[in-house]
Amino acid sequence: MTRIWNDPAEFADEMIAGFVAANERYVRRVSGGVVRSTVVPTGQVAVVVGGGSGHYPAFGGLVGQGLAHGAAMGNLFASPSTQQILSVAKAADAGAGVFFTYGNYAGDVLNFDAAQDRLRAAGVACETVTVTDDIFSARPDEKQKRRGIAGDLTVFRVAAAAAEAGYPLTEVARVAALANERTRSIGVAFSGCTLPGAPEPLFTVPEGRMAIGLGIHGEPGVDETDIPTADGLAELLVSRLLDEVPDGVSADGARAVPILNGLGSLKYEEMFVVYRRIAELLADAGIQAVDPHVGEYCTSFDMAGTSLTLFWLDDELERLWDTPVDTPAYRRGSVTTAARADAAADEPAEVTAIPPADDESCAAATIVADAVATIAATVDEHVDELGRMDSIAGDGDHGIGMQRGSHAARDAALTARDAGAGAETVLVRAADAWADKAGGTSGALWGVILTSLAGKLGDSGTPQPADVASGVAAGLAAVMAYGKAEVGDKTMVDALVPFSGELTRSVDAGADLADAWSAAADAATRAAASTADLLPRLGRARTHGQNSVGTPDPGAHSLALIVTAVGALLDGNERN
Amino acid sequence: MTRIWNDPAEFADEMIAGFVAANERYVRRVSGGVVRSTVVPTGQVAVVVGGGSGHYPAFGGLVGQGLAHGAAMGNLFASPSTQQILSVAKAADAGAGVFFTYGNYAGDVLNFDAAQDRLRAAGVACETVTVTDDIFSARPDEKQKRRGIAGDLTVFRVAAAAAEAGYPLTEVARVAALANERTRSIGVAFSGCTLPGAPEPLFTVPEGRMAIGLGIHGEPGVDETDIPTADGLAELLVSRLLDEVPDGVSADGARAVPILNGLGSLKYEEMFVVYRRIAELLADAGIQAVDPHVGEYCTSFDMAGTSLTLFWLDDELERLWDTPVDTPAYRRGSVTTAARADAAADEPAEVTAIPPADDESCAAATIVADAVATIAATVDEHVDELGRMDSIAGDGDHGIGMQRGSHAARDAALTARDAGAGAETVLVRAADAWADKAGGTSGALWGVILTSLAGKLGDSGTPQPADVASGVAAGLAAVMAYGKAEVGDKTMVDALVPFSGELTRSVDAGADLADAWSAAADAATRAAASTADLLPRLGRARTHGQNSVGTPDPGAHSLALIVTAVGALLDGNERN
Repeated sequence: MTRIWNDPAEFADEMIAGFVAANERYVRRVSGGVVRSTVVPTGQVAVVVGGGSGHYPAFGGLVGQGLAHGAAMGNLFASPSTQQILSVAKAADAGAGVFFTYGNYAGDVLNFDAAQDRLRAAGVACETVTVTDDIFSARPDEKQKRRGIAGDLTVFRVAAAAAEAGYPLTEVARVAALANERTRSIGVAFSGCTLPGAPEPLFTVPEGRMAIGLGIHGEPGVDETDIPTADGLAELLVSRLLDEVPDGVSADGARAVPILNGLGSLKYEEMFVVYRRIAELLADAGIQAVDPHVGEYCTSFDMAGTSLTLFWLDDELERLWDTPVDTPAYRRGSVTTAARADAAADEPAEVTAIPPADDESCAAATIVADAVATIAATVDEHVDELGRMDSIAGDGDHGIGMQRGSHAARDAALTARDAGAGAETVLVRAADAWADKAGGTSGALWGVILTSLAGKLGDSGTPQPADVASGVAAGLAAVMAYGKAEVGDKTMVDALVPFSGELTRSVDAGADLADAWSAAADAATRAAASTADLLPRLGRARTHGQNSVGTPDPGAHSLALIVTAVGALLDGNERN
Repeated sequence: MTRIWNDPAEFADEMIAGFVAANERYVRRVSGGVVRSTVVPTGQVAVVVGGGSGHYPAFGGLVGQGLAHGAAMGNLFASPSTQQILSVAKAADAGAGVFFTYGNYAGDVLNFDAAQDRLRAAGVACETVTVTDDIFSARPDEKQKRRGIAGDLTVFRVAAAAAEAGYPLTEVARVAALANERTRSIGVAFSGCTLPGAPEPLFTVPEGRMAIGLGIHGEPGVDETDIPTADGLAELLVSRLLDEVPDGVSADGARAVPILNGLGSLKYEEMFVVYRRIAELLADAGIQAVDPHVGEYCTSFDMAGTSLTLFWLDDELERLWDTPVDTPAYRRGSVTTAARADAAADEPAEVTAIPPADDESCAAATIVADAVATIAATVDEHVDELGRMDSIAGDGDHGIGMQRGSHAARDAALTARDAGAGAETVLVRAADAWADKAGGTSGALWGVILTSLAGKLGDSGTPQPADVASGVAAGLAAVMAYGKAEVGDKTMVDALVPFSGELTRSVDAGADLADAWSAAADAATRAAASTADLLPRLGRARTHGQNSVGTPDPGAHSLALIVTAVGALLDGNERN
């Protein structure tokens, strides 16, 4: 369990502050994460990694000479926001483009992809390789859906070594993809972890039992057994990995790096007892173990568990692997220490002027700001419930993420309204703040919905019900394009589709906004209820072949709660 | 809790085997531990560290260029035996003498001191500095009694850097003593750890509470409070350390290395949140934080807790600190990689011939071997009880240590008897095996008792009751000289004194051996019972100012059990 914090809501920020204070020799703080504090030669591709916090040394602990140039550090178990990734990437860029590499999780993919689009739009070359080493998170014929776990390290290191060797961006991407293809992991777990301030663990494993393939955020595994002996565990891990040797590799005679990674509470001594047998089994299979790693490379707070990774080398990969690294949490070989970079002051946040608005739009802006404040209050009221629902289906951060996002949106909306902004501007500011502060999948999607809706409200005149309905429809279209989810995937789309459909239908039939919105909210609530009811059963039933993209999501439930509360606000305004 | 093992009795050996398999680049296995696998220049002082296993990276993980030359690795939480330390020291010696440095625990002091005596007797120069950084384990006026915790790292590094810089042995000892004097730590704990195979934790801390000053083997602390906030914890740690700044140091303007060490289950993220505030507090006090360390340097399996160490630098210490290190678990700066040493085959164990014995002594040898087998059976029967008693008073390893020692003694005694050895030789072989395999305090003391007794039995003729009584008296004298304990210190001496006294008195009064032994065993049992009864109360009451030397010990209880069982054997022999 986690025991030490100040305010749980500030945990990630304070953790990053302490991490930077302890490691100024390696890293400096930028908005959204850290970059190297040492000089990077101009013209070197910048390798930017990232993901949620709670996995130290991943991701900030891996920034330094020979490894990452920057890490976007999200909230606990939540993807960094697009804005955070963008900020880190810009600070890390040394003029030769940016290479993104990170574990394959839906929220991270959403936000890194959006950041990549924005970098490219700004003329910065950017390529991406997601890490998909966890062989139990999807079948071999759906390898691209697999999650990334401790195998992150091999892909990150190879990409960084290539960058330091002067490879151009496309070549960095090529060797990183090759490293990913040749990296396979399998994990087991004995207990879950507890997020700071949470009353109970995010997930549990029954006493005396071992979950096979359980994800590092508690994503369901493929099997559960009694805890084996150390030798039995070694045999399980090695045999399953030998069942899936990469194409073109023959185990007998191969050279491979074994990485036995601890998730937090399974300790070094236990892992060495297991490794003793792993070494024997690899030798028996004719595999030459190169540079074995036994330690903590990607943790999940104090989760008890371990994973074994095999990184199947070829000549180029081995040459890139065998290079020096000097970072806060990971060091190999001898590094010629680079000079400390001038700590360029962080660029001040861009202050953009409030566009002019007429009185009608300013009046509407007040309703918009009230609605955003209502959203924040609704999330506050339900934050524990949302967290619990998400801990069954996902990684338990939905409540916290929604809270951080909606609070930031409320503050931004009120500030903009007080500065005389119109409806569109108030909502755009709220959307940007939400996406930036919340991170994760839900943060990105709510940012998209509110931005789309804002575009139909304008900063002049009173928005009409048809504007709102078409704005919501635009938001729905953007979410489906962006999140790649469809109805039935158990995501917020399941509630957003009936909401948008009913809103448009009612408005087209002549209803006023309050009535149309209420009818739409009812439709969303019905859809969300059936989705939410499925969660516990689905959580238990999810097996091999399904991954975190498209799995049940409490996002439908929170959407229903929010549109219902906003409906009540509109209805009250109507009556007054 | 600990979850993964094969046979708990083999855990430490298998752990070391796996550790070496994963780290052949750094270390090679020798009897008793590991030494560097890289070339050490002839004429460099060899720094040998060591202690019980279960504290990784301490101690094997700290062997490599720029740090230790060898580590004696004991059983779990048990000191390595004299023989193990001697073996590692001889393998590490590069012709310029051996420097021992380790945490100040009674068992380690006993065994390292004995190894030092034997090295010196063999013409190898040897000096020792024990680490005493834990300020809550004894009052400032008894600093030499304090335990060593994470501050080990500073003393080890300074000694090793001095050795690599070519300092002679006396100068290595001088700077190590200075480093120890300028290293102060304070620890807190939230939960205990569980030894492999143990049914329950070695010790516990009540849920929601924090023990202040609790030792890394559960040695009682000085206070207990509710778990504070992260900032509150930082303030506690820093303020207590600032209360005890070393003589001659002014905090304001000082340069100090802060080391925030995790004990196993308190994770990096939590420690960074705490470090954030520590950095502020140090700055507020005018202290320049140099090369901050936040991580795991000396753990206690999966114990949840942390310690803060401040290492107060002067120019020489800072120069020695700022040198490169490359070991399995600890790396700093750039090391010029040394060549791999020829893996000199371990010297085969010395095989010494069995001295001749007459028929009478061979008959007595059978009784001796039976008695040693009885001891092993008695320990087996009571192993859990002994472990529980020790977990109240000490580190819980007494049962396991006695088991390993008595089993080895039994096997050696039976082998010697079968080879035709006399009584003295059988018992000497048993004594050597016990001390070598058990490690810890009890292993060393039982080795001393049996060796002393053996000296009076001889390899010719039938030993007389007076021989046995004077042998036991010699054993008592040796234990008191060696272990520095007196009656009333709550150690095995409390039972051994009445046992020896009554045995001598009864024999002198004309009793046969069986009767005299039984009377003596009764006296030992009475004495042990009163000692054992005190344990739970004393365990709770031990506070600031007492340390592990001379605190209650289940050794008196196990001695009483053993002499009672041997008495029954003698009595049965008499009747037949």
